[in-house]
Amino acid sequence: MTLRIIATGGTFDKCYDPLTGNLIFSESVLPTAIARARITDPVSFEPLMAIDSLDMTDAHRAQILSACQRSPEQNIVIIHGTDTMRETAQVLGEAGLKKTIVLTGAMVPYRISSSDALFNLGFAVAVAQLSAPGVFVAMNGRAFAWDRVRKNKAAGIFENADQHSQ
Amino acid sequence: MTLRIIATGGTFDKCYDPLTGNLIFSESVLPTAIARARITDPVSFEPLMAIDSLDMTDAHRAQILSACQRSPEQNIVIIHGTDTMRETAQVLGEAGLKKTIVLTGAMVPYRISSSDALFNLGFAVAVAQLSAPGVFVAMNGRAFAWDRVRKNKAAGIFENADQHSQ
Amino acid sequence: MTLRIIATGGTFDKCYDPLTGNLIFSESVLPTAIARARITDPVSFEPLMAIDSLDMTDAHRAQILSACQRSPEQNIVIIHGTDTMRETAQVLGEAGLKKTIVLTGAMVPYRISSSDALFNLGFAVAVAQLSAPGVFVAMNGRAFAWDRVRKNKAAGIFENADQHSQ
Amino acid sequence: MTLRIIATGGTFDKCYDPLTGNLIFSESVLPTAIARARITDPVSFEPLMAIDSLDMTDAHRAQILSACQRSPEQNIVIIHGTDTMRETAQVLGEAGLKKTIVLTGAMVPYRISSSDALFNLGFAVAVAQLSAPGVFVAMNGRAFAWDRVRKNKAAGIFENADQHSQ
Repeated sequence: MTLRIIATGGTFDKCYDPLTGNLIFSESVLPTAIARARITDPVSFEPLMAIDSLDMTDAHRAQILSACQRSPEQNIVIIHGTDTMRETAQVLGEAGLKKTIVLTGAMVPYRISSSDALFNLGFAVAVAQLSAPGVFVAMNGRAFAWDRVRKNKAAGIFENADQHSQ
Repeated sequence: MTLRIIATGGTFDKCYDPLTGNLIFSESVLPTAIARARITDPVSFEPLMAIDSLDMTDAHRAQILSACQRSPEQNIVIIHGTDTMRETAQVLGEAGLKKTIVLTGAMVPYRISSSDALFNLGFAVAVAQLSAPGVFVAMNGRAFAWDRVRKNKAAGIFENADQHSQ
Repeated sequence: MTLRIIATGGTFDKCYDPLTGNLIFSESVLPTAIARARITDPVSFEPLMAIDSLDMTDAHRAQILSACQRSPEQNIVIIHGTDTMRETAQVLGEAGLKKTIVLTGAMVPYRISSSDALFNLGFAVAVAQLSAPGVFVAMNGRAFAWDRVRKNKAAGIFENADQHSQ
Repeated sequence: MTLRIIATGGTFDKCYDPLTGNLIFSESVLPTAIARARITDPVSFEPLMAIDSLDMTDAHRAQILSACQRSPEQNIVIIHGTDTMRETAQVLGEAGLKKTIVLTGAMVPYRISSSDALFNLGFAVAVAQLSAPGVFVAMNGRAFAWDRVRKNKAAGIFENADQHSQ
């Protein structure tokens, strides 16, 4: 099985800027993370954009959808900021592609010692392989269907969209 | 969904002994790794043994089987040395339990900077959730059925058992 | 020789807050860093405050001076934010204590993989042991006298105060 | 001030070999460690050899002495295995060069998360700058004269040679 990993930025890929003290986007960590994973099947890495998901517009989401459409691989993992992961998942989900697309990210940047990024990458790669075509959000050790998930920002976790609702 | 993670030792969990310069077993890293993963569903952690898988005997494998049998959780991840992961998978596979049991490990210890351990843990947790009952080996970004896998020691990777055989 | 290490916050000790995405102060990393250093002489650790050095007032500096005055140890390392390290060094320097006081910090937080923090700690501990009484800034692999140093914020380095001046 | 850093191998520079499970020498970590230290003065890095110090012979020590003799820099840090650091220090000490030579190493390899290597490098660089010509062993947050140090292998620390003796 072949896999495409598309990077869009988000907390997963942020690095520290010593001059300003801010977390910014520089070189992506994904090539390092993918090498570390020791995956034996071919992986195509596509660094599509590097932005905070709060800055993501409809145009950015159209670009992500287009990348998924033209992907020759049927199994796609998208590295994405957590704040609007659900919104991008919805755009992709409503498009109804015949591919398995898994969005993941991190609550703590890869380059910080306590990061969940590498765990989430491993989890998402498995979901991309084992699930039927569809769009999923893979966070907190769970795979959510794109239309049944929300981020609980106060708790910093993803949960079922119908939980605590209304 | 609830999950049980059983530690048996292996490269995943080895740490460096400054006095001898050897890699040994001391406190397990699994509680740290599990916390880092930010899993929201309940996880039961069971530190069953801490040995190199080359030192694993039939008695050890019987102990692992017994731990799987008495596990109240249906989804089990076993952290295991890679050298005899296949042999333990066979013992568990032939027992035919109605649980999803996934063996994983690492080629580089968790505590070393380039380790695949956290990726493998994430991958294995997803396989344990998404697969039908059965026994699987999850390494190198792939999930293998227990009776169709072997470790290629020269290359340091897991591959289909029927590859290059006869 | 005995040593006192006083923590005041700064980039060295910042950690990532998953809920807000900001770098904040939580539990100090200094006890971990000191253990890792395998120092055999006694070390007294004093967590005095945990603030960004841009937020440091005259009152905070008076508190740091007071901590140095009452320190039973003659050799003192102060972990401090880099932005106003020079200002605090001046307050301590003008007080003329008969102790060797070394201010250090980090350009990248300890918890981030490319951090200079542990190097700077080692450098500062040596300066504190080997220098005559006085106040020093130890950054970028150099020990500066308190009245001959400035931070070049554009370059993100410490340099001689008389360089490029007038 | 300019500095020369000479790598000879030792625990500091060991890396994990996934195929054999042994700690071996591969690419040196020193260029990475030096970049991380953010040293602003020029540093010449000389990868002289990469061996375990238990395998070090008189010929190796003659090679290290020769590297020190021809070094244009007056301040030299040597990264060395801890087991025979004292013996090499003696060879260099008896040669009586008019340079400040500091031997350091690590009890835990640089690439392992709890390593003392970067602290020791920072400590040694400061000793190399601040000490009069002579040969020193810098370990455990202390600088020892070459003829007054020994490794206590049972405790895994360096101590004064006259401690506990006769």
